Amino acid sequence: MEDRGKNPMGTKMLNYQLKEEEVVAEIQELNAQMVGLQFPDGLRVHATGLARKIEKETGATTLISGDSCYGACDLSDRSMEGLVDVLIHWGHTALPLDYRVPVLFVEAYSTMEVFGSVKKALKFIEDYETIGLVTTTQHLHLLDDLAKYLEENGKKVQMGVGKGTLRGQVLGCNFSSASGLRADAFLYIGSGNFHPLGLKLSTNKPVIIADPYMNEARIIDEFTDRILRKRFAKITLSAGAKSFGIIVSSKEGQMRLEMAKSLKKLIQDQDREAYLILLDNIRPDLLMAFRDSDVFVVTACPRIAIDDDQIYEKPLITPYELEIALGIRDWEDYQLDEIIYE
Amino acid sequence: MEDRGKNPMGTKMLNYQLKEEEVVAEIQELNAQMVGLQFPDGLRVHATGLARKIEKETGATTLISGDSCYGACDLSDRSMEGLVDVLIHWGHTALPLDYRVPVLFVEAYSTMEVFGSVKKALKFIEDYETIGLVTTTQHLHLLDDLAKYLEENGKKVQMGVGKGTLRGQVLGCNFSSASGLRADAFLYIGSGNFHPLGLKLSTNKPVIIADPYMNEARIIDEFTDRILRKRFAKITLSAGAKSFGIIVSSKEGQMRLEMAKSLKKLIQDQDREAYLILLDNIRPDLLMAFRDSDVFVVTACPRIAIDDDQIYEKPLITPYELEIALGIRDWEDYQLDEIIYE
Repeated sequence: MEDRGKNPMGTKMLNYQLKEEEVVAEIQELNAQMVGLQFPDGLRVHATGLARKIEKETGATTLISGDSCYGACDLSDRSMEGLVDVLIHWGHTALPLDYRVPVLFVEAYSTMEVFGSVKKALKFIEDYETIGLVTTTQHLHLLDDLAKYLEENGKKVQMGVGKGTLRGQVLGCNFSSASGLRADAFLYIGSGNFHPLGLKLSTNKPVIIADPYMNEARIIDEFTDRILRKRFAKITLSAGAKSFGIIVSSKEGQMRLEMAKSLKKLIQDQDREAYLILLDNIRPDLLMAFRDSDVFVVTACPRIAIDDDQIYEKPLITPYELEIALGIRDWEDYQLDEIIYE
Repeated sequence: MEDRGKNPMGTKMLNYQLKEEEVVAEIQELNAQMVGLQFPDGLRVHATGLARKIEKETGATTLISGDSCYGACDLSDRSMEGLVDVLIHWGHTALPLDYRVPVLFVEAYSTMEVFGSVKKALKFIEDYETIGLVTTTQHLHLLDDLAKYLEENGKKVQMGVGKGTLRGQVLGCNFSSASGLRADAFLYIGSGNFHPLGLKLSTNKPVIIADPYMNEARIIDEFTDRILRKRFAKITLSAGAKSFGIIVSSKEGQMRLEMAKSLKKLIQDQDREAYLILLDNIRPDLLMAFRDSDVFVVTACPRIAIDDDQIYEKPLITPYELEIALGIRDWEDYQLDEIIYE
């Protein structure tokens, strides 16, 4: 945002760097005539401002994806196939998928100050020597500065490259950048409790959160216990179920049909019923039609069963949770579902 | 439903003939291993019952589409491409589209009694000699009996084949089976007011409704006047708008991108702003991100602007309504939007 006086987004201060000049240059370079624009829900308010700038400076016509978008697993490449020359996707990094149109991924960097919360986190990590450092896409550009800050405060810092993720990056469904590290504890920079929960369950190490949005630091243990108690209640409810709806996502990056078929077989082998249900967006009203399903197993985005369970009448469980409910996985082997591209 | 005692749908009486035996035979004939099942929202409660029967009798695995479905314009062929050998689609007739998987269309016939309402309609058509007869897909199988009944009551009956529709069939976006007829009045057999409204506006003839669901007959005039007053209010609001969001559907049978581009040009020629927004399902929460759009022009399903306008904060208008708002179509030339395949 070199020129706030002519801010094409209006008067609102931007919390993100959307790299508009680079995007304009790239479209000119490609000589693209039709340009798709896609944003995570939180950034879509900037869509028309960016469209205005791009159309004015490149002469291209833009087509804004208005559907919800939760990740690079959820690209509008299929709906835009044949309609656009290039799709500009903000806010997520590429997954190793065969996208159906050329895609330009633009990492939207948060301009939020993070060191205040990291400073507050120091007291929670004082007993640990080696710290595994992880964050989400919008803060990735700060990792080196963050590592340096921690080292100045006497820590050894580890960061890993994951399967399908960048150095130090975690997704809500992919903690592989952390799982190989020999850290004494993990420091997560970002908002919310879901990513740290996944870190905790996949590494079994102490996890400390530096949350710049709340300007606070906290530890994840109590939240983890609360979630696990809830999950174990859902698993218990599912253990006696007669009929299971197995939800398969039609989003290419979330589609695990073969896994769903295997789960169907596991269920049927126990003389219970299972149906495969293909869904684009999973919503309570859409599950109402499946009256005789006692439980829904979600093979789509792993967050849905965990984050949204309170809005559904019937239990939503993950594939691992189903295995526990069927008695073919031990309760002690509980883990969060992940979608990792090998 | 030859055998109610072994009704695979459970104990609920079926209001529709779903032709399960024919479907099973067809799947066996095709030797299909993966079978997609898709239903309009009202029939989807039968999905698991049909899946159970099909899997048991054919050995195939079924994949039920759980997304909303409003017509043959809205097929799950794209999301099921590569996943199924055949898609069985209940409740709509084929449109002349290139579907991406083999599709078997099963016309779900309503078993509802209709002659009671038709008898009540006789008094509304007593002044007219020639009656144009139209209905929706679920009552099509009764058209010959209905025509005979009207003839026995002294009427001449006309039925037309439309562009992309069967003899006597109307869709919510296609009244072409009626528009060529030289009838004195039209008799519509079915529920709701939307189809008769379209008939009224596209034929400009008296339209009488025989509604078997309400077991009543009524005329459409008062409803038409009320809707037109509302529409003219929306057009008036849109006439002064500075910025328009033009919604393009990503559903193949509703996608009118070229039309949307033309409308964008019409708007920009008047020094106003217009943006193209691609959406799968149009919902109020998804339009919230487009704060600087004063009006949304819907090039997707023509019913959305008319039927759902009260749930949207900003005006939703159709392409014809936009032309009136821009002053390039006369108010007298108001007509309902249709999507007709030539």
